[in-house]
Amino acid sequence: MLHFDTDYMRGAHPEVMRRLQETNLDQTTGYGTDPHTAHARELILQACGLQQGAVYFLAGGTQTNATVIDSVLARHEGVIGAETAHINVHEAGAVEATGHKVIALPAHNGKIDPAELEAWLESFFADGTYEHMVIPGMVYISQPTELGTLYSLGELEAISRICRSRGIVLYADGARLGYGLASEACDATLEDLARLADVFYIGGTKVGALFGEAVVVTRPELFAHAVTNIKRRGALMAKGRLLGVQFETLFTDGLYLELAANAVDKAMQIKRIFTEAGYALAIDSPTNQQFFVLPNAVMDRLHEHATFELWGPRGPKETMVRFVTDWATSQADVDELARLVELAAQP
Amino acid sequence: MLHFDTDYMRGAHPEVMRRLQETNLDQTTGYGTDPHTAHARELILQACGLQQGAVYFLAGGTQTNATVIDSVLARHEGVIGAETAHINVHEAGAVEATGHKVIALPAHNGKIDPAELEAWLESFFADGTYEHMVIPGMVYISQPTELGTLYSLGELEAISRICRSRGIVLYADGARLGYGLASEACDATLEDLARLADVFYIGGTKVGALFGEAVVVTRPELFAHAVTNIKRRGALMAKGRLLGVQFETLFTDGLYLELAANAVDKAMQIKRIFTEAGYALAIDSPTNQQFFVLPNAVMDRLHEHATFELWGPRGPKETMVRFVTDWATSQADVDELARLVELAAQP
Amino acid sequence: MLHFDTDYMRGAHPEVMRRLQETNLDQTTGYGTDPHTAHARELILQACGLQQGAVYFLAGGTQTNATVIDSVLARHEGVIGAETAHINVHEAGAVEATGHKVIALPAHNGKIDPAELEAWLESFFADGTYEHMVIPGMVYISQPTELGTLYSLGELEAISRICRSRGIVLYADGARLGYGLASEACDATLEDLARLADVFYIGGTKVGALFGEAVVVTRPELFAHAVTNIKRRGALMAKGRLLGVQFETLFTDGLYLELAANAVDKAMQIKRIFTEAGYALAIDSPTNQQFFVLPNAVMDRLHEHATFELWGPRGPKETMVRFVTDWATSQADVDELARLVELAAQP
Amino acid sequence: MLHFDTDYMRGAHPEVMRRLQETNLDQTTGYGTDPHTAHARELILQACGLQQGAVYFLAGGTQTNATVIDSVLARHEGVIGAETAHINVHEAGAVEATGHKVIALPAHNGKIDPAELEAWLESFFADGTYEHMVIPGMVYISQPTELGTLYSLGELEAISRICRSRGIVLYADGARLGYGLASEACDATLEDLARLADVFYIGGTKVGALFGEAVVVTRPELFAHAVTNIKRRGALMAKGRLLGVQFETLFTDGLYLELAANAVDKAMQIKRIFTEAGYALAIDSPTNQQFFVLPNAVMDRLHEHATFELWGPRGPKETMVRFVTDWATSQADVDELARLVELAAQP
Repeated sequence: MLHFDTDYMRGAHPEVMRRLQETNLDQTTGYGTDPHTAHARELILQACGLQQGAVYFLAGGTQTNATVIDSVLARHEGVIGAETAHINVHEAGAVEATGHKVIALPAHNGKIDPAELEAWLESFFADGTYEHMVIPGMVYISQPTELGTLYSLGELEAISRICRSRGIVLYADGARLGYGLASEACDATLEDLARLADVFYIGGTKVGALFGEAVVVTRPELFAHAVTNIKRRGALMAKGRLLGVQFETLFTDGLYLELAANAVDKAMQIKRIFTEAGYALAIDSPTNQQFFVLPNAVMDRLHEHATFELWGPRGPKETMVRFVTDWATSQADVDELARLVELAAQP
Repeated sequence: MLHFDTDYMRGAHPEVMRRLQETNLDQTTGYGTDPHTAHARELILQACGLQQGAVYFLAGGTQTNATVIDSVLARHEGVIGAETAHINVHEAGAVEATGHKVIALPAHNGKIDPAELEAWLESFFADGTYEHMVIPGMVYISQPTELGTLYSLGELEAISRICRSRGIVLYADGARLGYGLASEACDATLEDLARLADVFYIGGTKVGALFGEAVVVTRPELFAHAVTNIKRRGALMAKGRLLGVQFETLFTDGLYLELAANAVDKAMQIKRIFTEAGYALAIDSPTNQQFFVLPNAVMDRLHEHATFELWGPRGPKETMVRFVTDWATSQADVDELARLVELAAQP
Repeated sequence: MLHFDTDYMRGAHPEVMRRLQETNLDQTTGYGTDPHTAHARELILQACGLQQGAVYFLAGGTQTNATVIDSVLARHEGVIGAETAHINVHEAGAVEATGHKVIALPAHNGKIDPAELEAWLESFFADGTYEHMVIPGMVYISQPTELGTLYSLGELEAISRICRSRGIVLYADGARLGYGLASEACDATLEDLARLADVFYIGGTKVGALFGEAVVVTRPELFAHAVTNIKRRGALMAKGRLLGVQFETLFTDGLYLELAANAVDKAMQIKRIFTEAGYALAIDSPTNQQFFVLPNAVMDRLHEHATFELWGPRGPKETMVRFVTDWATSQADVDELARLVELAAQP
Repeated sequence: MLHFDTDYMRGAHPEVMRRLQETNLDQTTGYGTDPHTAHARELILQACGLQQGAVYFLAGGTQTNATVIDSVLARHEGVIGAETAHINVHEAGAVEATGHKVIALPAHNGKIDPAELEAWLESFFADGTYEHMVIPGMVYISQPTELGTLYSLGELEAISRICRSRGIVLYADGARLGYGLASEACDATLEDLARLADVFYIGGTKVGALFGEAVVVTRPELFAHAVTNIKRRGALMAKGRLLGVQFETLFTDGLYLELAANAVDKAMQIKRIFTEAGYALAIDSPTNQQFFVLPNAVMDRLHEHATFELWGPRGPKETMVRFVTDWATSQADVDELARLVELAAQP
C-alpha cells in the first residue's frame, strides 16, 4: 500500500535520528538553555541573513501559532487571515482560546490578495465606529498555503509594505516552508521572508524533523518575555535540546532544503502523471501537495492500493483529492503510483 | 436640531423614572434577590407564556451576549452568527475574549438563511476532520437584526428545528426586541420566540429603560450556576433591584409594547416621507431603524438641522444613511423632519 | 426594621436622582462622548489635583477591577493583593477569567504590609526560576479595605515607592473611597492617592450614586485603547452620560465627601454604642463598616428588629457581626439602634 | 562533572530510542489514531487495573495540566492545590491563562492535609456568599510531590472520599509517578491511584521517555470531546505515534518501574552518603529528589565537581540544596559523589 495522505506519517530524517541517538545520554540544562539550541539559533539566523533576531523552538504548529499570536498581539487586537487559513479552520479555535479574533478575508487559492487587504484596512480605519471593533494587529499568511500555493515575492513585498505602513505585524506560518522554498516556482527566498515578515516559523515536523518548529522573530521586542509566555502556553519543552539538536542537523550542510527538494521533485512527477493521464488539477500547486479532480471510479480503484485524502465531500461523479509527498517519498513510490494510475484508467 | 442617530440617546420612559424615584430610598437586599426582581421575573415569564424558565437581568447588550454565550457553550464550542451579527462586528471581540469563536455565515439583509444554515451544518459534520475544528454549539440571531429586518415565524421555526435536531442552542439577541414585536410585519410573537429559542434577551436599554436587558432561559439547565457565571463576568449588579424595578414597570399594563409601537409608527412615517420624496430604501426595514440612499447634497442639507448616521462610507454621489426612532420620538419630530426633507430637495 | 447589612441597599442620593430626572429627555451621543461625562472628568481630575490623566466611568466594581487589571497588565503578568482582597475572594474569579493570576500576600487587618511586599518582590526576582512563574505586574490595594481599615499616608508612600522602583503598577480599589477619605483617621487625601497610585477608582455605587465607578488613570499610557478594551469586556455603557451626570453631581460642591461624612459619623456613633455597652471590636475600623463580637443571645435579639451580616460562621457562644452605614443612614436610625442594643442586653 | 540538577537532562532510555528508530520510517495516520497509540492505551489501562477508561498522550507536563484542568472544570470552577503545587508556582500561570483560579491550601512537605481540605470545603459551602466565589471543582495533588514526598494510601483514600462526597474531581499530577511507585515507602500502587483519582497522568518525560505524559481518565465522561479540547490547547501531536511508541515500550515487560527503581535506589544511596556524613535532611524524601542542608563551604567545594540546585536562596552559613537522580544515574556516579562528599568535608 502506498501512502500519500500527508507529510507527517513518518518519523524523522535518518540524520536527525542519528544525532538524537548520538547525543541521547549527554546531560544538558533544560528549557532551551543548552549549546545545541544556541547553535541551532545561530545557524538559522545565518540562513535567514539576519544580523540580529530571536529564535524560539516549539513542538508543533498549532501550539506555535497560538503562542506567537497571543504573545505578539495586544489583548484587544485580532489577526487577519485568509478564510482557508489553518488558524481559521483546523486549529479547533486555539487562537480564540487565547482571546483573539481571527478576522477572515476572502481566500484566492489559499492566499490573501494584497489589494483586498489594503482596501479592507482602509475601510476599517475609515469607519467611525472602529474602536468598537477588534483592531487588526497582525496579518497571518501561510507560505506555502494550506492549498500548496505560494505567495510571490511581489505579493510578499506588497503585504509587508501594507502592514508596515499601518504598524501591523506580518506573521508567516511556515509549517511547510521548506516545500515552498524548494519549489522552482518560488521567487521569494528565506532571506526575503526574513526581511519582509516580522515573525515566521520554519516548520520541522513536516520537513524532516521528528517534531518541532523554529520561530524567527526579526524584531525581538515584539515577543518580549518569550520564555514566560511560551511556558504559560505549556509550550516550553523541558528537554529543549531535542529541538536544538534537530534544527542544528537540519540547518547543517543545507539538509533542510535538500530534504524538501526531494518532496517537491516527487510532487511534480505526480502532477505530470495525473495531468498527462487527462485528469484536471483542482488547484495548480507548485509544492508538495497536489490536488486533482478524479472520476469516482478511478479514485476508488486507486484507493485499493494507495491512501490519499478526499479534499471535501465525495461528489456524485467526481471528487477532489489530495496527494502529498514528503522528504522520504521515493522514486519507487512514484513509479508504482504511475502504474496504478494507468491501471485505474482501464475500466 | 433633530436627532435620529440611534435609540439610546435619551434616558428612560417617565414611568420608569417615576418608579425608580418612588423606590429610591427603600432598602432591599442586593444582587437581584429583592422582591422587585422577583416580580419582574414573574411578569416576564407570563408575557412569554412560559410555565417555567429562568430570567436574569444584566446592564447592557455586549455584556449580556458575552455572559450568555460563554456560560452556555462548552469551552470547545463556537457560536454561529450572520456576518453582520453584532457579536461579529461591534462588540470589540467580547465573545472571543471569553475564548469562543464566532463562526460567520453569509448575511441576507442581516439574517441567516435557514437552508444555508442546514447545509453548513450538514457539511461540517460530514467532514472527517471536524474534531479539529470549532464545534458549533449555538446559533445566534438578532430579532430584529442589526439592519432592522425581521425573521418571520416560518424562518424562526426552521432555524429552531435545525438547531434542535443537532442539539445546538438557539439564542436570540433582542436588544431591540420590542421594536420588532410592535411591527405589523412581525408574525412571530414573544410567545413564539419563547417556544422556539432556548435563550433570548428582551432589550430594555433601547426600549424605554435607563439601561438593562432581561435574559430569558427557557431551559434553565443550560445556564447553570448563573449567579457565579454572571458575577465572574462582572455583570452582577450590586443594586440588582434597579433592573427589577425597571422591567417590572415595562411589563406592567403592556408598557413595553406600547412604547415600542410609538417608535415603529414614527419610523413608518419617516419611511413614507423619504420614499414619497423619491429616495430609495437601502434596506426595507419594518422596524425602528430606516435606511435610505440619499444624494450627498440632500444628505448634507439635512445634516444642518438633523443628526443621523452614515451607514458605511460617504459615496461619490450618494450615501447610505440610517434614521432611528425610539419610544420618545414625537409627532412634532416627524413633522419637522418631513419639512426638512422637502426643503432639502430644493437646490 | 432597621437595615445595616451593607451600603448598596438604597438607590441614589436625591440630588443625583434630581439631575438624572432633569436630563432624562435630553438627547446626547453615547458611550461617554457626551458633555456631562466630559465635565465629570474635569471635575474629578481637579479634585485629584491632576494636571493630566484619564478618567473612565464603568458601572460596577467587579467589572471595573477585571477591566482595569486585564487592560493594564501584560498577558504574562499577575496582580499582587492581600489574601482578603475583593479580587481574591468575592469576584468569582473575574480576574482569573481574564487570564491573570491573583498572587495573594498575607493580610493584616485587610492590608498588605509594605515590608512584606518588598521582601516578597526581592525574593521573587532573586529566584533563578522566576521566568517560569507569573511575573508581578501590579499591586492591588483597597482603600479603605474590605475590613474597613485604612492605609496610612506613610504606608501608601512606602508601597508606591516599592512599586515604582520595580516598574510595577499600583492600583487602588476605591469602592468605598469616600468613606475612607471622610474618616478622621485618614491622613491620605485624594490628591495623595492620585500622586501615589497609577490607577485607582472612586466608587459611586456605594457612595451616593445609583451605580458607577470612576477610574482615574494618572499615567494614561497605561490604559491605552481604553474604549476598545472597555467595550471588549462588556463594560462600555451605551448611555454613558448616565455615569457622567451622576459623577458630575457628586463632584459638584463637595457632595461626594459630604455624603460620605454622614456615613462615617453614624458609624462612629454605632461603634461607641456597642463598645460602651461592653462589646468587643472584632476589627478597629475608622470607616463606615463596623465589626463587633456579640454574644449570640444579644445578636439574636437584635436580629428581631435589625438586619446586619454575620462576618464568618456563627460561633458556639459569640459571633462576629458587621454593621454598615451609608450616606443616607439617619440619626433616627442610630438612636433606634442604641435603644435596641440597650434592650438586647437585658435578658 | 557530575550532574544532579534534575531528571530531564538526558534523552530517553536506550530501549525507547531503539523502538523510535525501528519504527521511524513506518507510515501511520496522525493525531494518535495509529496502532502503537492504541496498544499503549491498552497496556496502560491494564497496568492500572482498569476495565474501562480513556488514555490520552501529551508532550509535556505544563501542557497536560492546563489541558486537563481546563477541559474538566466548568468555566466558573477553580482547582485546589497545595501552595507549593507546580501549577501554583512554576507553570507561569498556565492554569489562570485558561481562566481558572488555583486555590492554594497550606502545604505540609508539599502535601495537602486531608483534614484541612475537608474543613476548608465545609467552611466554603457554609458561607452564604459562596456563589460570589470561585467554586472548587477539582483537587490537584502531585504524587510524588514537588518536594519528593508521597501521599500514603490512607491519605489518598481520605482525599478521594472527601472529593467524591462533594462531587469534586481528584486529579493527580504524576510527572514523577514512577519514582513514587518505585519507592519502598510507597504503599499506594498504580491500581490504587486509578481507583482513587478521577484523572491522573503518568509522567514519561522525567522517567525514561524522550518526552510525553499519559493522561488516564478513569471516568471518561469527565473529559468529553477530548480530541477537540487537546487540539484547542495546541497539545495534539501530529505524529501522535511518537508518544504511542514510547509508552508502548515503557509499559512492556515492566520497563517503566524498572527504570524508576534505579533512580530511587541511587537516591537512597545519596541520602545515606549525606546523612552519614552528618548533614541534615531538609526534607525527608523517599523518592528520586533529595534535599539537604549543607554548610556553604561544603556546597561550594562540591559545586566544583558536580552540578545540583540550590533550593531557595543561599543562606548566610548554610543552604538548602537538591540532588536529583534519574533512570540513568549509575553506580559510578554515586560512588564518585560519595568520594566528593568525603573530600568536601575536609577543609
